Amino acid sequence: MLTHTVEEGPLINSFRQLWDEIAPIGRDPHSGGYLRYALTEPELRLREWFREQADERGMPVTEDGNGNLFAWWGDPDAGDAVLTGSHFDSVPHGGAYDGPLGIVSAWLAVDELRAAGVTPARPLVVGAFVEEEGARFGVPCLGSRLLTGQLAADRAAGLRDAAGVSFAEALGARPAGADPALLGRFAAFVELHVEQGRALVDQGAPVAVASAIWPHGRWRFDVTGEGNHAGTTRMADRRDPMLTYAFTVLAANKEARLRDAHATVGRVSVEPNATNAIPSRVTGWLDARAAEPDTLAALVEAVRVKVAERARRDGTRVTLTEESATPLVAFDGGLADRLAALLDAPVLPTGAGHDAGVLAAHVPTAMLFVRNPTGVSHSPAESAADADCAAGVTALAKVLAELTT
Amino acid sequence: MLTHTVEEGPLINSFRQLWDEIAPIGRDPHSGGYLRYALTEPELRLREWFREQADERGMPVTEDGNGNLFAWWGDPDAGDAVLTGSHFDSVPHGGAYDGPLGIVSAWLAVDELRAAGVTPARPLVVGAFVEEEGARFGVPCLGSRLLTGQLAADRAAGLRDAAGVSFAEALGARPAGADPALLGRFAAFVELHVEQGRALVDQGAPVAVASAIWPHGRWRFDVTGEGNHAGTTRMADRRDPMLTYAFTVLAANKEARLRDAHATVGRVSVEPNATNAIPSRVTGWLDARAAEPDTLAALVEAVRVKVAERARRDGTRVTLTEESATPLVAFDGGLADRLAALLDAPVLPTGAGHDAGVLAAHVPTAMLFVRNPTGVSHSPAESAADADCAAGVTALAKVLAELTT
Repeated sequence: MLTHTVEEGPLINSFRQLWDEIAPIGRDPHSGGYLRYALTEPELRLREWFREQADERGMPVTEDGNGNLFAWWGDPDAGDAVLTGSHFDSVPHGGAYDGPLGIVSAWLAVDELRAAGVTPARPLVVGAFVEEEGARFGVPCLGSRLLTGQLAADRAAGLRDAAGVSFAEALGARPAGADPALLGRFAAFVELHVEQGRALVDQGAPVAVASAIWPHGRWRFDVTGEGNHAGTTRMADRRDPMLTYAFTVLAANKEARLRDAHATVGRVSVEPNATNAIPSRVTGWLDARAAEPDTLAALVEAVRVKVAERARRDGTRVTLTEESATPLVAFDGGLADRLAALLDAPVLPTGAGHDAGVLAAHVPTAMLFVRNPTGVSHSPAESAADADCAAGVTALAKVLAELTT
Repeated sequence: MLTHTVEEGPLINSFRQLWDEIAPIGRDPHSGGYLRYALTEPELRLREWFREQADERGMPVTEDGNGNLFAWWGDPDAGDAVLTGSHFDSVPHGGAYDGPLGIVSAWLAVDELRAAGVTPARPLVVGAFVEEEGARFGVPCLGSRLLTGQLAADRAAGLRDAAGVSFAEALGARPAGADPALLGRFAAFVELHVEQGRALVDQGAPVAVASAIWPHGRWRFDVTGEGNHAGTTRMADRRDPMLTYAFTVLAANKEARLRDAHATVGRVSVEPNATNAIPSRVTGWLDARAAEPDTLAALVEAVRVKVAERARRDGTRVTLTEESATPLVAFDGGLADRLAALLDAPVLPTGAGHDAGVLAAHVPTAMLFVRNPTGVSHSPAESAADADCAAGVTALAKVLAELTT
């Protein structure tokens, strides 16, 4: 048990000081958001910063051959270790907190434990997972999926970014893939993350414990029609895939609202994407999530049926292809209850995928959420008060003390 | 009058031979369409080919300092010249015929006149206008607008392509701008063009004369909302600009159908355009056209009102900005009637803009259309039968003989 009494002011200052070290890295001056794509220059600088932080704390760093970093307080071979951490990479023009808050909080929690004279009885590990957002190579949680074997090394090696660079090239080697021996050394994983919603604002609490991650997935819908001249083609002669695309956007929104689920079309690609040309093809990506797997399946099926009907009216062809699907992740119930009692914190589900969701199938896993006043995430407007971040560090330190002593 | 009797077979062969010289230039092997952007390598090769054709026919070439080329049969200073020709540049993955057919037909019409022993009493000029499609620098009919003074040289000089290259840099000099002296030497302009619709298929005729170009314009609509996480943001908390965009696409389509007008949204840009992010901004471009200016204005106004209402529901902000507007162009009625009688051809309006539409305000202008079996244009499916192209050459030769002798 952590008996040290946290003095709030100094911890807020410590947080701000460490936070400011990384705040400028990869920040776009126009949007105020971050361009920290995995294994690009800003993210490589953050990884270097990770090694410096580990050095300062005398924690040797190991790599798993998949791009994931681990800094060890205690003997890496001892087993029964407690892992904490998150990721550095961002979505395009993403916020500052999504990912880095979990790593910065981990370093500060280590400092808090040491200041309190805590000596862990088992190894405490700070980790940084690679390509959590999937913004560069298209597969979210790439690093944790490789480590756990949920994604084959060969498939990951061949994933390419928009410039044609493969993941293996970016990594400098073919990824090593599943490492059950390493995974077997972890007795628990705790990921601290900024909340991506406003439940903690509504509840008036700075920190929560996660109960579950909603099942979710990505479906690509390809609509093909007939490219033609915008000025001269009679409306009745058109086979315009943009109409089917637009209908799909509105239908997905409606079906999600009807089910208290979430549906978003945030990405589109148009050929040829010219003002005076009816497109020949429009591709959209549907992101859909729901509290229950059956609800999610019903939502996607309803969209599929309505869009197929609309395509017949538009004279277009549409296919809906599942690109990724993540089942319901229920975090370890005993662990969540234990941490909620320890912290006197509310327990919340989330609609967002995380490395914690991937590891949960292999290691008893928990998540802590820190209040986000705007509720906004994946955007420059994402935020957290320094005092709430300090509360997050305190909560994480308590949890780590509880689990390692 | 052209008294030479056309032997159809040889002319079809001549057409195919000349056509095959340029068919491979700028053709994308995947789409089968053309990437002949103004002043890029494929278009520069076509301009070189233009000079070779002029050389072979002993026709000196002049430039107007705006990127437009003119090859002269007869004394350039004599005045009262008859101009024919079109453009080489394409939309992205456009068809083979839109533009080049008018230039190839012009060379063959010169050959036909010479074979028939016609000696023009006034200069006959073959022209190639630059950047008719606006696909590289964003302003359609850039060359003819510069020549006529409809676009200021300074503004054109600063237009930039997607890579940031300015029109002045691409041209190798600041454009010269309006040239009333050159324009004043033209007594008539006749542009032959592939039909961009199926009216000639319906009427069973290979060639038509144009009556008018519908008034048309481009409106950019910028929808701003709040970028956010697709998985965690409650539907009720969203301000999703993609919804307003999708509604606009469908509303424009409906309003155009109600008025027998044309409306197209063929181009969209999304920020950040990520699968798991509610966009912060979606920009679309509306291309709208109608037979009458009042109909066009009513169409755009109806879209504006409906979209503003929808934006209030979506919690987004939308602005509709006119980027370009081209009034109704009625071609010289006397000239059109005279050519229709000469050719025994139908008279048709068109929804497409052309350099002929720009020159019509300064020079008596006519257009000839050649039948397009698919009716498709601005797409690889655009086509014309060799026999119809030969019929187009015959018609153009007749018209040029009529106007120059």
